[in-house]
Amino acid sequence: MAAARGRCELVTITTTPLAAAYAFCFLIMTSLLCYVAEGTPAWFWGGGGDDPYCLTWRVMVEANNAKGWRAVPPQCVAYVATYMAWGQYHRDVAAVAGQAAAYATQINNNAPAADGLDAWVLDVDDTCLSNHPYYQAKQFGPYDPAAFKTWASRGVCPGIPAVQWLFQTLKGRGFRVFLVTGRDEDTLGPSTAANLLATGFSGYDRLIMRGAAQRGVSSVVFKSGVRKQLAEEEGYRIRGNVGDQWSDLQGCCVGDRVFKVPNPMYYVP
Amino acid sequence: MAAARGRCELVTITTTPLAAAYAFCFLIMTSLLCYVAEGTPAWFWGGGGDDPYCLTWRVMVEANNAKGWRAVPPQCVAYVATYMAWGQYHRDVAAVAGQAAAYATQINNNAPAADGLDAWVLDVDDTCLSNHPYYQAKQFGPYDPAAFKTWASRGVCPGIPAVQWLFQTLKGRGFRVFLVTGRDEDTLGPSTAANLLATGFSGYDRLIMRGAAQRGVSSVVFKSGVRKQLAEEEGYRIRGNVGDQWSDLQGCCVGDRVFKVPNPMYYVP
Repeated sequence: MAAARGRCELVTITTTPLAAAYAFCFLIMTSLLCYVAEGTPAWFWGGGGDDPYCLTWRVMVEANNAKGWRAVPPQCVAYVATYMAWGQYHRDVAAVAGQAAAYATQINNNAPAADGLDAWVLDVDDTCLSNHPYYQAKQFGPYDPAAFKTWASRGVCPGIPAVQWLFQTLKGRGFRVFLVTGRDEDTLGPSTAANLLATGFSGYDRLIMRGAAQRGVSSVVFKSGVRKQLAEEEGYRIRGNVGDQWSDLQGCCVGDRVFKVPNPMYYVP
Repeated sequence: MAAARGRCELVTITTTPLAAAYAFCFLIMTSLLCYVAEGTPAWFWGGGGDDPYCLTWRVMVEANNAKGWRAVPPQCVAYVATYMAWGQYHRDVAAVAGQAAAYATQINNNAPAADGLDAWVLDVDDTCLSNHPYYQAKQFGPYDPAAFKTWASRGVCPGIPAVQWLFQTLKGRGFRVFLVTGRDEDTLGPSTAANLLATGFSGYDRLIMRGAAQRGVSSVVFKSGVRKQLAEEEGYRIRGNVGDQWSDLQGCCVGDRVFKVPNPMYYVP
């Protein structure tokens, strides 16, 4: 980039108005072309996105090929910030919610069973509620438990519009909806419940949080246990399961179909 | 787009060389800006890729959120053609192969067990061998069994460079490598074996194809059966499993870790 910028520097020496006009034109056009080239948009270089490396990385995250990463790669912080804030993230979530709603329509010929046991499981963080403001402020850096707890305890996470819509759609069709989160119940229970209520997530069947007995247990193990209880002990048929982490969607009793909500901000093993 | 193009039409009336120079400059700059705006590159509109809709769709395919599609959406045919041919596809495959190789390095401290039972399973079509020329010629349209068989029987699929490299890397580290494909053994056995050999896939442990008994069986069922045989009957530990379809990577005995190679060209249930 520095080299490209270097090539674009111009020194113009003008003597007549005509020459000045042409020089001005050349200067502006060259600057514009340099700006375009430095942004390396996909159509210019022929890639599939605005930053080929970071797009590759993001797709690997979504397809669960990239695992165990502790922070957004430094060269992709600006890319992730743009992705989250400028529309593509919300388009992606809306498309996933649309797939989930279309699938829900097919279940039982658009009529959940009369026994009231057709259920969906939704994750909370960055599925129902957005932590984007927090992670943006932290520049998508590594997980900081204390700072995150302070943020979450404020109960001010925005709702994610497409999932708010999906939640209402599922409720409206008569599905039981369980919200399952690894958040600690003792410390974050009231703020999480209030945050959900304030963002329109009301009328769910149960908010299931991590209790004292599950502290330190991995997300897959904790959530598998919750789903096993719902499915095997309580008899619910988990028709769909929506989460932003693959650890929400793997392990026991994942449900008939899982939906991966995009999240390039952090990874939960 | 039509409206944008309309706004960009200019009629210039010039009388002096100086005015002509400025008008020329304005015309060129406006045309350039119109071209940029009509290409709607991601950095311009703030999205995450060159075509927001098709990028969303492609990521949904990779994350297994979009299922059962029979052909590339018509508005994304040009997008997929660009993605496949202009570099981003090969960057994506290379990144996935890199993850797989890095993971292989970790297994057993970089030394497969001496019993020779540490194994990898690789799919063939669009994992080892590319059908991109065929699908490009078909404009990424619906599956055409007869035409595909004619193409596959020619044995001229190019090898996919990053997977050729991964294959050699796995062999070089002492893993057993099994190639598992839903291709019909009777009709495509010799051409597939010759195609693999010609593209550098030699020294694999076994090429396992669909026999007469498995005709009409779904890919998940067929491949699960193969892996079950390898793992439970023959005692192999499937350390890694690489495929371009989620149906390669689900069902029984998928292996310790799965790797999804990108493929926005077609979907196999």
